[in-house]
Amino acid sequence: LNIVPSPVQFEYLVRVQPHHTDYAGVVWHGSYLRWMEEARIDALRVVGIEFADLVAIGCDLPVVELSLNYRKPLQMGNVAIVRSCLLHKEKVRWIWSQNIESKEGNTLCVEGKVVLAAVNRQQNRVLRTLPPSLQLACDRFLGLTDTIP
Amino acid sequence: LNIVPSPVQFEYLVRVQPHHTDYAGVVWHGSYLRWMEEARIDALRVVGIEFADLVAIGCDLPVVELSLNYRKPLQMGNVAIVRSCLLHKEKVRWIWSQNIESKEGNTLCVEGKVVLAAVNRQQNRVLRTLPPSLQLACDRFLGLTDTIP
Amino acid sequence: LNIVPSPVQFEYLVRVQPHHTDYAGVVWHGSYLRWMEEARIDALRVVGIEFADLVAIGCDLPVVELSLNYRKPLQMGNVAIVRSCLLHKEKVRWIWSQNIESKEGNTLCVEGKVVLAAVNRQQNRVLRTLPPSLQLACDRFLGLTDTIP
Amino acid sequence: LNIVPSPVQFEYLVRVQPHHTDYAGVVWHGSYLRWMEEARIDALRVVGIEFADLVAIGCDLPVVELSLNYRKPLQMGNVAIVRSCLLHKEKVRWIWSQNIESKEGNTLCVEGKVVLAAVNRQQNRVLRTLPPSLQLACDRFLGLTDTIP
Repeated sequence: LNIVPSPVQFEYLVRVQPHHTDYAGVVWHGSYLRWMEEARIDALRVVGIEFADLVAIGCDLPVVELSLNYRKPLQMGNVAIVRSCLLHKEKVRWIWSQNIESKEGNTLCVEGKVVLAAVNRQQNRVLRTLPPSLQLACDRFLGLTDTIP
Repeated sequence: LNIVPSPVQFEYLVRVQPHHTDYAGVVWHGSYLRWMEEARIDALRVVGIEFADLVAIGCDLPVVELSLNYRKPLQMGNVAIVRSCLLHKEKVRWIWSQNIESKEGNTLCVEGKVVLAAVNRQQNRVLRTLPPSLQLACDRFLGLTDTIP
Repeated sequence: LNIVPSPVQFEYLVRVQPHHTDYAGVVWHGSYLRWMEEARIDALRVVGIEFADLVAIGCDLPVVELSLNYRKPLQMGNVAIVRSCLLHKEKVRWIWSQNIESKEGNTLCVEGKVVLAAVNRQQNRVLRTLPPSLQLACDRFLGLTDTIP
Repeated sequence: LNIVPSPVQFEYLVRVQPHHTDYAGVVWHGSYLRWMEEARIDALRVVGIEFADLVAIGCDLPVVELSLNYRKPLQMGNVAIVRSCLLHKEKVRWIWSQNIESKEGNTLCVEGKVVLAAVNRQQNRVLRTLPPSLQLACDRFLGLTDTIP
């Protein structure tokens, strides 16, 4: 019997605000990047990483790749669900899936994929290995250990 | 015995996100306007107005005046409390006080005052009188009637 | 003798502003989307399309796909060059390459690819064919006819 | 004969972009803060201060007060003129007037007033006196010495 660990899926809710929209009356295509960032920060918190603390100790997790597929625009008044899931890890690179749905109708609106890389802030260099706290966070994201710290 | 009605105070929480900050490591001065807008939209919802519905029936509440006093910067990881309160109404103009505090230490960080005006969207004109739903919302904000619809 | 038409490359300059940056002291990853949009609007103008006019006649060109590869962060004070080029057209979809370089050192900082689709605003539907003005713009972008109107 | 020095007025042009707008089809009220910041940074450059250099030597000029009066909304396709003028200086506080006009029709759209304070970045404290380079910039803004360095 093999139990394959599966990555944890996180949900983050956002209500569409006037400042998210543009002249077309729907969410401006760049606003989704804010939501996706917020959702990742929130997921980190769940597994025990306060992002501001990470930065304070000299580590950062910048976005190094990003791809988005816009399927259906969200509108003012909609509530969006950002579903985030760490798909896998390649050395210090984290590959996330982040899909955005409309809560009304559970429609898939944006398909997103984001790659983060752990860097040393002072040297502005990609780290060779993850610091232990991030390695543990990663294991929690991937379902390799208990999620809640 | 005179019981003077007093305006209702609304609290709206915001966690400082990376995208709110600038090179100085603190919240960029313009980001607060997003929070203040979100807080007003939220307060409207509490008193029974879904902002998207208001817009759909052809009414809008644009900001016509704004003043901010920046006392102390908020930082990444901080949780902010936006305290909003409709001070009074002059015809179709709503005068809001919106102060932003840091939850840690209850420090006053930004003092804000915002004036909204009810307008007809199609004609892009200030209304002469508030539509009944907005008049009721206003009375609820000012404590002249029960807040919760 | 075959002269193969080649797509026109457009340059759009942006100076990095405080509001583009985040706590890391470099440009926030989402700010580039603003620059890329500005660069496309500017390129449209060069080939004779005023974007506001296009919207006014009921047509829009929303982003339907987006992918970015972040290679090197830009910093406050840097001048960026957004190099935009319509690679090809598939029916009403326009596939753009948009790379961002730092003017200092001509370093490639961000590799971008953006797909737009022509839609009917009122029906919120993808058009079957491009309106003549957009078809002409497209031919100009692709070097199939003179660029400057 | 008394020649009263008069403050120099700076013009900064901005073309309204899709990302500046909101659902109402006009510029979102917070977008103007970006333009005003850009205009001040540009004015500093004219009098010899590269803002990134100022920050690099540990000095910053955060906004400490802000007031805006929105008179007429700008729309997509409009070109805006931000007219900036240092009205006066109180110790290390700079009081700016920043009005925004529509180039079409020279209409006043937003009246702005912004107060900056020179601070020491490391201590996050207001400076007691301006560093010489900023004092000179200030004299240039106020017309007390030649503007162009």
